[in-house]
Amino acid sequence: MKYFVTGGAGFIGSNLVDRLLLQGNDVTIYDNFSTGIPEYLENAKKNSGFTLIKGDLLDPDLLDEAISGCDFVFHLAANADVRFGTEHPAKDLHQNTIATFNVLEAMRKNSIDKIAFSSTGSVYGEAKVIPTPEHAPFPIQTSLYGASKLAGEGLIEAYCEGFGIQSWIFRFVSILGERYPHGHVFDFYKQLRIHPEKLDVLGNGHQKKSYLYIQDCLDAIYIAIQNSHEKVNIFNLGTNEYCEVNNSINWICEYLGLTPKIQYTGGERGWIGDNPFIFLDCSKIRSFGWKPKYSIKDGIIKTLEFLENNQWILERRI
Amino acid sequence: MKYFVTGGAGFIGSNLVDRLLLQGNDVTIYDNFSTGIPEYLENAKKNSGFTLIKGDLLDPDLLDEAISGCDFVFHLAANADVRFGTEHPAKDLHQNTIATFNVLEAMRKNSIDKIAFSSTGSVYGEAKVIPTPEHAPFPIQTSLYGASKLAGEGLIEAYCEGFGIQSWIFRFVSILGERYPHGHVFDFYKQLRIHPEKLDVLGNGHQKKSYLYIQDCLDAIYIAIQNSHEKVNIFNLGTNEYCEVNNSINWICEYLGLTPKIQYTGGERGWIGDNPFIFLDCSKIRSFGWKPKYSIKDGIIKTLEFLENNQWILERRI
Repeated sequence: MKYFVTGGAGFIGSNLVDRLLLQGNDVTIYDNFSTGIPEYLENAKKNSGFTLIKGDLLDPDLLDEAISGCDFVFHLAANADVRFGTEHPAKDLHQNTIATFNVLEAMRKNSIDKIAFSSTGSVYGEAKVIPTPEHAPFPIQTSLYGASKLAGEGLIEAYCEGFGIQSWIFRFVSILGERYPHGHVFDFYKQLRIHPEKLDVLGNGHQKKSYLYIQDCLDAIYIAIQNSHEKVNIFNLGTNEYCEVNNSINWICEYLGLTPKIQYTGGERGWIGDNPFIFLDCSKIRSFGWKPKYSIKDGIIKTLEFLENNQWILERRI
Repeated sequence: MKYFVTGGAGFIGSNLVDRLLLQGNDVTIYDNFSTGIPEYLENAKKNSGFTLIKGDLLDPDLLDEAISGCDFVFHLAANADVRFGTEHPAKDLHQNTIATFNVLEAMRKNSIDKIAFSSTGSVYGEAKVIPTPEHAPFPIQTSLYGASKLAGEGLIEAYCEGFGIQSWIFRFVSILGERYPHGHVFDFYKQLRIHPEKLDVLGNGHQKKSYLYIQDCLDAIYIAIQNSHEKVNIFNLGTNEYCEVNNSINWICEYLGLTPKIQYTGGERGWIGDNPFIFLDCSKIRSFGWKPKYSIKDGIIKTLEFLENNQWILERRI
């Protein structure tokens, strides 16, 4: 199989690429390196089945050419900066919605009929049903990021109906683990490296969060694609547990052997559009026998181990 | 109040504009006349509160200037050509999704904080719950049109959360009545004017359809805006009845005194993405005391009366 992975130099993308290559597949990655990290591809580059194309999804001509001959698309490239959405409202529209449209058009022109898409639990907005199943009540969007991913889902579904494409749409909780390059564990670790005596926390620390470890996430993606055969296959991916930001802070401080002064700022929530609680009902993917091998705490520890062993990533401007 | 109406030269838009002007409001319409009809504005043009701007929603500079000073936006402009979506996949993206983004950006820049949006029952895809309520299970899109309207809804909702805008989102069934310039009643009437002895019908005639008469629709929009005060207010608009395409054919033929030979083509459905049954649960808008004054049959007859009295519209290339 020849796979095409957009955002293949990113956190989830590069881990996926390594696994696909290990199994003997050919993999072309397409990444504009706006947030992709070249170092993540060091192993992949040694593999003869690997092709790297530096390109932007907003360049449809290059995309059409790059995707040619591939069998299956993992569309993972996105603006994943949920937090600052309101500072640049066009970014989610261009990099998520229009970019997804361009991927679908390139697939159509090249007769590629299978796509897996990284959506988000944020599409549920402030869910009325928690844990939230895939068939939750029609949600109201609360972030430009969620809205742009919802738009991407809708486009993919319409292409499935209109052009005979098959899709797997994954609504993730936050993913953690090796190569995790942003988010609160990264921020807290970086802060504590600079000033071990204090930690600034946005919100009141009681925000509930659910996380999934990257390798568990990839296992779930594989199992979903192997076992679900509808035209459109939608899966929540998360764990059956959740934590508060305060739990996470305790685990991080315990791991680092620090007792910083915690300063909470910004009221109950972290930022506008920050959902106070994303917790997904994952019984659909669990019905295929999948369950996470690692707890949220395990995932956080593994992330910290990665950061400890890769201090260079703290210095990068992401 | 000064209203800004995108698509104000269209079927629903021009009827709304007449009503807003009649009540003494100022109204600026913004229309690119790609499907808007200048003749629909003949009455409006006589009113001193009326301003017409010929412009495209994909021209953000002109839009920013035109919208300045308005208090309330009715965003009705759209590519409403559901049927041929797969022949030009970019059209819905540009004219519905990106256009809606441009309207929201223009509102934000001009500190306008109220918007009403014409969405569609098509966003429910092939609904699992019929009649379909606003909080139906998270739908899967089956048309590029539905997907583009879903994307528009999501953008509006995210702007409400992020920028303090208030919105009223209306998911319409098909609307009928004076100035109705496309759709099956229009097509059938036009065919029968040309060849009264036969009628070509796409699908098997058993497609179930729900329609609402334009003036009932406008009543509902007014009542919803006056009575609902959430950040995001979503309403289904339709009647409590439905008909088959065959019923509609009978009413049309009876009205015209014709007995054409009916030729069904194209299998069970009309076209790819044609939902076999959109039937909306409108108990939310009914809870405010609204109910339609006209039946589906009444709406079809009123449409035919309009077409009989405005033969010029049949000759237009729409």
